[in-house]
Amino acid sequence: MEWQQVFSTRIARMKASEIRELLKLLDQPGIISFAGGIPDPRLFPDTAFQDAYSAIFSDGAGAEALQYSVSEGYTPLRDWIAGEMGRLGVPCTRDNILITSGSQQALDYLGKLMLSPGDTALVGWPTYLGALGAFNAYEPRYDRLSPQGNRSAQDYADAAEAAGGRVKFAYMSVDFANPTGETLDRATRERMIDLADTLDIAVIEDAAYQALRYEGEEIPPILALEIARKGSIDACRTLYCGSFSKSLAPGLRVGWVCAAKPAISQLVLMKQAADLHSSTINQMAIAEVASTVFDSHVAMLRDTYRARRDAMLAALAAHMPPGVTWIKPEGGMFIWLTLPARMDGADLLARSLENQRVAFVPGRAFHADGSGGNTIRLSFSLADPVTIDEGIKRLGALLSA
Amino acid sequence: MEWQQVFSTRIARMKASEIRELLKLLDQPGIISFAGGIPDPRLFPDTAFQDAYSAIFSDGAGAEALQYSVSEGYTPLRDWIAGEMGRLGVPCTRDNILITSGSQQALDYLGKLMLSPGDTALVGWPTYLGALGAFNAYEPRYDRLSPQGNRSAQDYADAAEAAGGRVKFAYMSVDFANPTGETLDRATRERMIDLADTLDIAVIEDAAYQALRYEGEEIPPILALEIARKGSIDACRTLYCGSFSKSLAPGLRVGWVCAAKPAISQLVLMKQAADLHSSTINQMAIAEVASTVFDSHVAMLRDTYRARRDAMLAALAAHMPPGVTWIKPEGGMFIWLTLPARMDGADLLARSLENQRVAFVPGRAFHADGSGGNTIRLSFSLADPVTIDEGIKRLGALLSA
Repeated sequence: MEWQQVFSTRIARMKASEIRELLKLLDQPGIISFAGGIPDPRLFPDTAFQDAYSAIFSDGAGAEALQYSVSEGYTPLRDWIAGEMGRLGVPCTRDNILITSGSQQALDYLGKLMLSPGDTALVGWPTYLGALGAFNAYEPRYDRLSPQGNRSAQDYADAAEAAGGRVKFAYMSVDFANPTGETLDRATRERMIDLADTLDIAVIEDAAYQALRYEGEEIPPILALEIARKGSIDACRTLYCGSFSKSLAPGLRVGWVCAAKPAISQLVLMKQAADLHSSTINQMAIAEVASTVFDSHVAMLRDTYRARRDAMLAALAAHMPPGVTWIKPEGGMFIWLTLPARMDGADLLARSLENQRVAFVPGRAFHADGSGGNTIRLSFSLADPVTIDEGIKRLGALLSA
Repeated sequence: MEWQQVFSTRIARMKASEIRELLKLLDQPGIISFAGGIPDPRLFPDTAFQDAYSAIFSDGAGAEALQYSVSEGYTPLRDWIAGEMGRLGVPCTRDNILITSGSQQALDYLGKLMLSPGDTALVGWPTYLGALGAFNAYEPRYDRLSPQGNRSAQDYADAAEAAGGRVKFAYMSVDFANPTGETLDRATRERMIDLADTLDIAVIEDAAYQALRYEGEEIPPILALEIARKGSIDACRTLYCGSFSKSLAPGLRVGWVCAAKPAISQLVLMKQAADLHSSTINQMAIAEVASTVFDSHVAMLRDTYRARRDAMLAALAAHMPPGVTWIKPEGGMFIWLTLPARMDGADLLARSLENQRVAFVPGRAFHADGSGGNTIRLSFSLADPVTIDEGIKRLGALLSA
């Protein structure tokens, strides 16, 4: 069987992620890893989840939890999320919420909803690797979104048309983005709405890290700013992707899209055709845990991760040689380093693993155009402050050599 | 916001399923429903699941269960499935298994893997509605698969080429299919391999109901017959889709694809990009329940559903007027009726709901070409034998009027 003969054209775009292959090699004993961007499992609210699963069965809801359920998602969970979105400045109802299997699935569905081959998606350089991976399946062209607004809307539209498609959406991770840790300020968010209005495109607002702010004031979601202009979520073009993976736990695969009803209705049909619905029992467990411990748990996470971020920032200041710069994140899990232009992150990783036993992720893979060779991503989510200092000291020694 | 402007071309193919909309209206008190094709929740092994979730946390595996995990799926579950596939005549290893979020997701991924717009998928008339729904997202052309082999391979290939694509796969539900209840005999399965070999296409073998056989001898899966010819699963073109939704419980969303490694490797990349992985905790719970109660639980299901099938067959024989025919299923959940040619299943449903308070599913939606107006699908999975007799008696009265 020559499988290539029956594969679709999209398969040419779906290659193994270098980073994920790399990460498999990095989980070795003795290595200090700043590579993975995952939550610390020691911080999961496991007692709350244990109680939630137990209560489902002891309260006689076992049959409901084990049965098929509606594609939109579990009603009490959609209601809780609608309330939480309201707290973030996004008044809405459960009819504006679709439950997805993590926000990764939301990105996949949004690519599927909007992209035909040759259409243009505006993304940052660098941007979340998983967004590019999800969108690639729908064979888009990428154009570089400039949040500073130094390209005109007409410029984007012309380039898309010349490539044989249309700009369909601008994708952006708004708070403490993976990989850069950057947060879009309010003025930039407003400018993105202007751009989307002019181009008549959608905005995909990836808010996966939203709950993990360690300092500074919360900035309203783009969706909130758009509602403030237009009066109602149903008049808005922003599709907000939220997740419980960073705030509660990723292993249940529960996230959501919050958006105008016409978009949600079409996404519900898409979900019905693609996997019927997300796990019933997990949606019930998340609804229970969210409604009991969400705020106190997130407060604990913020305190813990803030200390790790501070330790890494202090260690970088102490140990990095001149010529290395980084972005101070106000939250999230990542610090993004720019090395001197002549250096290559992948080469540095090879030497770091061999000589210093420190792991991180080279930055090139986050760039849709293959640039960014002299960048690296460090995660502070998994190590304690003492280990962080030791790891950064070793990395600094390597960069100073 | 004019959403149509940013939607992809595939959205034109993704319409609301009439049946699913209908099913929402049918769950009313006082109606005898043969409409839904879902397992009886009173038969779920809920104690086994309660124990499994409890043991995960009390055995110190809570952090693992709540964390991200690999896209391929949970290793002990893949090993259990590989063993079960071996029992079915399909020797394989865990590297031939991808865990999906139900077999519905497997169908979605297989469409995504193989179909570019205009490619041809061979499907039965009628066929599983959810397969058409999943494939539609990839904008295929459908051609009618004739299991009796009265069309030549060249005929299929020419028609596909004339339509601007290539035949990519033949899809078939092999055991007690939804909606017809039919089982492909061994000779037909062998002929399907011949056809696929000649066309050099894949075979999607949907085995969602495989465990629910109530009489007769098990027929080896197409994949088993192909391995017997070719020596190894990795030389085979059949992609077997399995599910725990009918044998254990659907609410956890756990199914699998079993196939040659080159196909599985590409599907793993696809899953990584689409939703990272299926729920870790649910895969662990299913692995525990499957490895402890699978055989005994399935034996109980067979006894219970067999009695319901027999009750429905007896009632049909007693109450249906001449001119109505049906297929006797050897397992599964469905009996497929053909009404006199002049009758319409949708009209009959409207009258049945009004006059007799009996629900079922009209058969037209299962036909990719919109034919089948004089067919209806009855499910015996949810009602007890006495209710089944009463419902069929009422339906018979309506058809005799």
